[in-house]
Amino acid sequence: MRFDNVWFLSDYGLEDEFVGVVKAVVRAIAPHVTVGDVTHSIPAHDIRAGGLALARSMQYLTLVPAVVLAVVDPGVGSDRRAVAVEAGGENGDSAGAILVGPDNGLLASAVAMAGGARRAVSLTNEEYHLPAPGPTFAGRDIFAPAAAHLCAGVDLAELGELVDPITLLPGIMPLSRQEDGAVTGEVLWVDRFGNIQLNVDPDDLLVMEDPLVLVSGDKIRKAVRARSYSDLRSGQIGLVTDSYGLVSIALDRRSASEELRIGTGDSVTIKAAE
Amino acid sequence: MRFDNVWFLSDYGLEDEFVGVVKAVVRAIAPHVTVGDVTHSIPAHDIRAGGLALARSMQYLTLVPAVVLAVVDPGVGSDRRAVAVEAGGENGDSAGAILVGPDNGLLASAVAMAGGARRAVSLTNEEYHLPAPGPTFAGRDIFAPAAAHLCAGVDLAELGELVDPITLLPGIMPLSRQEDGAVTGEVLWVDRFGNIQLNVDPDDLLVMEDPLVLVSGDKIRKAVRARSYSDLRSGQIGLVTDSYGLVSIALDRRSASEELRIGTGDSVTIKAAE
Amino acid sequence: MRFDNVWFLSDYGLEDEFVGVVKAVVRAIAPHVTVGDVTHSIPAHDIRAGGLALARSMQYLTLVPAVVLAVVDPGVGSDRRAVAVEAGGENGDSAGAILVGPDNGLLASAVAMAGGARRAVSLTNEEYHLPAPGPTFAGRDIFAPAAAHLCAGVDLAELGELVDPITLLPGIMPLSRQEDGAVTGEVLWVDRFGNIQLNVDPDDLLVMEDPLVLVSGDKIRKAVRARSYSDLRSGQIGLVTDSYGLVSIALDRRSASEELRIGTGDSVTIKAAE
Repeated sequence: MRFDNVWFLSDYGLEDEFVGVVKAVVRAIAPHVTVGDVTHSIPAHDIRAGGLALARSMQYLTLVPAVVLAVVDPGVGSDRRAVAVEAGGENGDSAGAILVGPDNGLLASAVAMAGGARRAVSLTNEEYHLPAPGPTFAGRDIFAPAAAHLCAGVDLAELGELVDPITLLPGIMPLSRQEDGAVTGEVLWVDRFGNIQLNVDPDDLLVMEDPLVLVSGDKIRKAVRARSYSDLRSGQIGLVTDSYGLVSIALDRRSASEELRIGTGDSVTIKAAE
Repeated sequence: MRFDNVWFLSDYGLEDEFVGVVKAVVRAIAPHVTVGDVTHSIPAHDIRAGGLALARSMQYLTLVPAVVLAVVDPGVGSDRRAVAVEAGGENGDSAGAILVGPDNGLLASAVAMAGGARRAVSLTNEEYHLPAPGPTFAGRDIFAPAAAHLCAGVDLAELGELVDPITLLPGIMPLSRQEDGAVTGEVLWVDRFGNIQLNVDPDDLLVMEDPLVLVSGDKIRKAVRARSYSDLRSGQIGLVTDSYGLVSIALDRRSASEELRIGTGDSVTIKAAE
Repeated sequence: MRFDNVWFLSDYGLEDEFVGVVKAVVRAIAPHVTVGDVTHSIPAHDIRAGGLALARSMQYLTLVPAVVLAVVDPGVGSDRRAVAVEAGGENGDSAGAILVGPDNGLLASAVAMAGGARRAVSLTNEEYHLPAPGPTFAGRDIFAPAAAHLCAGVDLAELGELVDPITLLPGIMPLSRQEDGAVTGEVLWVDRFGNIQLNVDPDDLLVMEDPLVLVSGDKIRKAVRARSYSDLRSGQIGLVTDSYGLVSIALDRRSASEELRIGTGDSVTIKAAE
């Protein structure tokens, strides 16, 4: 099996040459491959943010079979494993993917989104590594070559020791909770436009009677249900089913996050006004 | 007709995974396509800045036939139309392009640059949309599939109802004005280097006698004509014919915008010193 | 000889459309080429930072033959030469590359890394330029077409007058110095994670007895040798052989540069504690 697409997510940023160097390694080994960027602006070392961005993207990255290269790797050079995980495909939900990255929880939600792990390998076969003066750039020396060799048709099992997928580190996905007709969730993500994504299912709001309020810390604000941002009048706070099927708090053409001073990780309760 | 190149401009930024997801959709539908980035750093919701960047680029994006995907779309999910516009080509000035994006003025100047609209379609045929939980990510669900299907050879008319190009929302392009031997223009753009582009034709300065002055608000500064930045001595303010053929205010190796505190949208008058 | 890969580094940033326009020009002339980004976030006009980033990347960009397009060009439009330099290849260390950019020292270290200049040309043949209203965007009008035509098989000598490589402007690479058992180097680079790269060879530390100290300005701090960041305990300052084989000062999951307030260009001495 060969792959034509590598999708690459990292916390490398675009200030340095890290991303370019990784791509050069991939293309030297597998010249037929197109490497696409998911994002490289994950905050440094933020495994949770990287895992969530990957999970949000996964359905689209695997419309066709792909290798997904993900590197948010604060433990680089430690004994955390470097892995490749084959997920989905063969009649599953997604077209199938092999995810390549550190075994630190980063890949877990994306693997689940792609249909679950079928095989996994610890990338211990040094024949598929680049020689390097030190162990601090695994993206270049271990992950990129692995992704490229997989694209070129090397079987997963060639890259090292097969490991039981059940031993892969799980991700941490916070759950919302319902109590007394209210739902309390956590902010998963604030996007560039300031929209605030919660881990709340829009169905959880169906039973609540309007008008609604948001409670976050000592802040209480009225909110209205809206289909899209532009349905909101100036100053109105909207609860929108966002493009990933979760509840997002939004304003029209302004940043809800800045206006409400609510950020990633904050707790938010939605309930009927009393 | 097939296209090999999609050029993509947006206000999505590179912090989130939006751009990567749009590219994944394009490549799933049209694997032969290369998606190139024009820029994704248009300020959020800034249709004018997006339209100007697109217009500046258009001559180069259409050296060969291309699909241009442009998304600065504050009205996403509202009743603003999603459109594809066929422009230029067939013996016109440019090699021809199809522009895909919201009908909010964003595309207008670029369409004109490419030789004018020949056909336009409202992207109403849902067979060419991706299913989505909500209407807030039209770039992924409507525009990207349309761009990709056009690249794969689907005719414009298949994507929805043909509309009269004259009904497309025009862009707003400010005009400079000449009065008493002075020319007054508006700052269209400040680039990364701090160069200040005006909507002023270099020919308008030919009749003025040196020395020249710039007037902006209550600031009056001497300026000299220069061929390039490096012709300027330290501290000199230069009037340069920039790479798009307009007058730019520049300093050598420093930001004219920061030094003069002149930004996008400001009014600037150039005239002979008295 | 044809090339399939152009690697592109610049100080253009990603805010404007410069990078996209350059790529559009390359692909119009050489549609088979993939243009990869090394980085475009070199600080404006910073030839030294650009040259160092290019030198760090070069070994990987030239795993297979490539054209390297590098533009940090404060003297654009002046009489600085625009050049293309053929380096390495033909049984040399690297697979060979042609570097295209201004002759201002930017390319020098990378040319050396690739095996040294074999031929060089001043890009004076206007048949291979794009017509332009002014001389300020050589990346688009001179360098991009040159890179593309080289990829398409045009010989270097076609692009202008051959020049003796010895006349190319050298780069400035600061040298570390050893004195009284101490080594004093200069900060070459602070990466996104805050790691501080010195122009110091790890071998220079072998003779020093632990414990070690860093001296920079009036700051003196203890430091320990470490193999990777994660070997460091909280608060420990590590001396790591980085992924380029140089000594880097690092903390675990925090920015050494911010914590120690040491930045690019600063002088740092490493020695045994007294």
